Amino acid sequence: MKKIVILGGGFGGAYTAMHLEKLLKKNRNTPFQIYLINRENYFVFQPMLAEVVGGSLDLLDTINPLRKLLPQTKLYIREIEKIDIEEKKVTLSPKFSHKSLELVYDHLVIALGTVTDFRGTAGLHEHALPFKNLADSILIRNQLIDVMEAASTEPNLKKKKQLLTFVIGGGGFSGTEVAAEVNDFVQKLAKRYKEINPADIRVILAHSKDRLMDRELSPSLGKYAGCLLQKRGVEIFFNVRLVSATPEEAIFNNGEKIPSKTIISTVPSSPNPLLESLPLQFEKGKILTDTKMHVKGQKELWSLGDCAAIPNIINNNNICPPTAQFAIRQAKILAHNIIASIKEKPQKEFYFKALGMMGALGHHSAVVELFGKFKFSGLIAWFLWRMIYWIKLPGTDRKLKVALSWILDTLIPIEAVQIKTSPTQGIAQLHFEPGETIFNQGDVGDYLYIITDGEVEIFIKNQEKEQLVANLGKGEYFGEMALLNQRSRVATVKCKTAVNVLALKKSDFGILISNFAELRKDFEQTEKIRQEKFK
Amino acid sequence: MKKIVILGGGFGGAYTAMHLEKLLKKNRNTPFQIYLINRENYFVFQPMLAEVVGGSLDLLDTINPLRKLLPQTKLYIREIEKIDIEEKKVTLSPKFSHKSLELVYDHLVIALGTVTDFRGTAGLHEHALPFKNLADSILIRNQLIDVMEAASTEPNLKKKKQLLTFVIGGGGFSGTEVAAEVNDFVQKLAKRYKEINPADIRVILAHSKDRLMDRELSPSLGKYAGCLLQKRGVEIFFNVRLVSATPEEAIFNNGEKIPSKTIISTVPSSPNPLLESLPLQFEKGKILTDTKMHVKGQKELWSLGDCAAIPNIINNNNICPPTAQFAIRQAKILAHNIIASIKEKPQKEFYFKALGMMGALGHHSAVVELFGKFKFSGLIAWFLWRMIYWIKLPGTDRKLKVALSWILDTLIPIEAVQIKTSPTQGIAQLHFEPGETIFNQGDVGDYLYIITDGEVEIFIKNQEKEQLVANLGKGEYFGEMALLNQRSRVATVKCKTAVNVLALKKSDFGILISNFAELRKDFEQTEKIRQEKFK
Repeated sequence: MKKIVILGGGFGGAYTAMHLEKLLKKNRNTPFQIYLINRENYFVFQPMLAEVVGGSLDLLDTINPLRKLLPQTKLYIREIEKIDIEEKKVTLSPKFSHKSLELVYDHLVIALGTVTDFRGTAGLHEHALPFKNLADSILIRNQLIDVMEAASTEPNLKKKKQLLTFVIGGGGFSGTEVAAEVNDFVQKLAKRYKEINPADIRVILAHSKDRLMDRELSPSLGKYAGCLLQKRGVEIFFNVRLVSATPEEAIFNNGEKIPSKTIISTVPSSPNPLLESLPLQFEKGKILTDTKMHVKGQKELWSLGDCAAIPNIINNNNICPPTAQFAIRQAKILAHNIIASIKEKPQKEFYFKALGMMGALGHHSAVVELFGKFKFSGLIAWFLWRMIYWIKLPGTDRKLKVALSWILDTLIPIEAVQIKTSPTQGIAQLHFEPGETIFNQGDVGDYLYIITDGEVEIFIKNQEKEQLVANLGKGEYFGEMALLNQRSRVATVKCKTAVNVLALKKSDFGILISNFAELRKDFEQTEKIRQEKFK
Repeated sequence: MKKIVILGGGFGGAYTAMHLEKLLKKNRNTPFQIYLINRENYFVFQPMLAEVVGGSLDLLDTINPLRKLLPQTKLYIREIEKIDIEEKKVTLSPKFSHKSLELVYDHLVIALGTVTDFRGTAGLHEHALPFKNLADSILIRNQLIDVMEAASTEPNLKKKKQLLTFVIGGGGFSGTEVAAEVNDFVQKLAKRYKEINPADIRVILAHSKDRLMDRELSPSLGKYAGCLLQKRGVEIFFNVRLVSATPEEAIFNNGEKIPSKTIISTVPSSPNPLLESLPLQFEKGKILTDTKMHVKGQKELWSLGDCAAIPNIINNNNICPPTAQFAIRQAKILAHNIIASIKEKPQKEFYFKALGMMGALGHHSAVVELFGKFKFSGLIAWFLWRMIYWIKLPGTDRKLKVALSWILDTLIPIEAVQIKTSPTQGIAQLHFEPGETIFNQGDVGDYLYIITDGEVEIFIKNQEKEQLVANLGKGEYFGEMALLNQRSRVATVKCKTAVNVLALKKSDFGILISNFAELRKDFEQTEKIRQEKFK
């Protein structure tokens, strides 16, 4: 029995499995086994994800259990460790045990999509929230509520305004939708807080072009979307890119710095790192396939969706755009071609002309473009948007649930409650720009910092005079004195250059230091030297 | 203007604030300001929490934003750092800044409830899931789905059965309810997995007495509940206590060990550690008050709910039981007494006779006891349970939402989807029993281990002969060789005694080691010595 292994459970992977299941029924003489590997046990309906941030949809409304969508498929909810094309096998990471799992395949479908990749952009990795999957939406939502709560009790106006500033980088579909939802959400939320003046709220959307959604929509609709968001209070920085971030501010390519605690970046997305090491042909980071979705130069290896560069026959052999519309249609042809290849029958070429594009703008408005001719905006577009996506939503019970949530959303005011399931990570990576202060003398000692890049200067204030007492560089640490002695910071630390640090929480530091003899010795020695020096 | 500060937003704290807000309207001549401090920005309706685990209710159905319930109250969503009774002030932990916040009060209400406290029980802290708040319910639900997924692809039958064994410690109200919900949920879920044989599933409830809910219900209803759960397949270990746990098994006080990856403990709950350092009189860990809920020996300090020992006038001056019923009634009297004390008017004594007790048993059944006379079980009790708690649920929109979820629950099959919002913690604490294996030669290298207690033995197998090569003890570490050299484990590690270790994830170890020069030197030195020795 042939084994078909699909990597990834997004639109490309899940729909390929769905179509293969249909073909399984039609081809009882040539049985085959479908395997699908995904990190989560659910399929996410991406186009509705922004509504989770804004709260129009419940947390679970956008997702559908894979096991229910794919009753005939063998599912592996695991991380993928390695793809071995020579040996035709995939290695899965261990879970609840110390052993990896190996899956041997006859046909492999790579549908791993893209990942948010902040490599090479200092500070964004550490301080920008990506917006890509369900966990990201929930984290963004939690962050919005967190800063609103903090702002409501913050006595310092400058700090308060910083907490109430929200920066979104990237004005494509997802960036624009998130900006619209964030703006709606915080504006509505602000009414609950007597201590928050709505005029202090800033929602900033930075886009590198001169109109929003320039690649996806026609100029007139893009401009309409921009004007609409501006009317609702979103500040749009056109021709400006978000390039870096620190714990205190967003930094743009024109040198502007905006103090903010909430920075969301929807760019850049790049291919899954698993693909990098494979001996395949790539075009702009995507796996190059022929028009039948065969990976170039490989037999029995297929690819589709956002991770594949599939020639678009209709459009001058440019590659197909990375949208759900295309992935869904590709999946059908791909499923057919795999079975045709097994049965040695002729395969089909993929061609499809996009029906149109849609973008939600929150607050009962959207922009829709159909068949390259009809353009809609405002309430009608919003209604079309909901209707079309609702029809596309797989599963009847999901349809029922989403419809109910939409009805309830109009009846019940938003719920500003946070879902926290696990404690935050022990070791955080932080990025600071030259001149920034990491902490001030007298602050509460909450973290130990280890410098991974750059240089800091340590100052001590004595009778109003600030004195430079030390310079620290890569591999050195600071902040341990306040932690070891349970008191407030004894010095001020400022960045001489751009600085990357690892921050280890006080509690984790405590656990490590009290149990790890060698580490403790190191710290005690350093502390003795520093105490002498700092006197 | 008098400042009334309430610590805690559970039934005691939130309802006190609600009643104070009502009194605020009636006493316009003596205005006062209410402050409430809570870790979350929502009130959790505890009695329905078990339904979140089982999935009858949506994640957010049991919670209600405090800001909506308490429009007149100033809310601080923060951790409490310190209570200073002498100076009459409360210090809140920093958030988004390095500064703590101090609140000075005229009246302080302590309503901090209890916390799950595994101190002194080796292994439970590390490997048992508590069941106390919303995050706990979500974690338990995620864990159930995780092990079912893993079991469905586990080839080894012994491992599979371990994954399908669920152990619950404590057969009071919450333990019984959780056991019932877990059992229903995994039984239903199992139908989706062809690879799981329902006969392999074990749900075990261990209770230290000879019948369930012995302290809360009359013998006949307690016995009924036990029989009902047994009929549904729950194994009940009577007169047995869960005393310890390791990553591989649950350990009971009769010496029995049950291999399991999912251990839930509903006991013990103990007072909030913040109270320990206060100079107050305690009774069984609870703050002793008079019948007016004044803390003994303190003026303008009040306490109620689960953290207070309030004499129960009606029942021989025993202390009031820790239930929502009592907390809600206490809150009303307490609010009156604070205002009476400010206005120097007479205060009221608290007395209340419990109306009855109710426990849900999942699957359309419950046990209910009203006025000490009427007993109900089965479907009628379940209907009563839902009706009474639904009426008690604060907020009209929450009522609507819960009713809808209950209706949907009967229409739509359960959704086995997990909500993961953040990566798991960097440093985990693990407990092992004597003779247990921490890892085997050839396993995947995933963690570095640092011993915090006990002794381990390192074995190396050479041509089928296993040889003891080293003994390691407190403060020493192992497992670094596989991590440093990116290969599988070169030795087997077994526990000579009971062992506690800190486990540091491979990725976090990588970050630390590649950036922290001194640490790297230490590890490299040790590794050189060990490589010589292990040859």
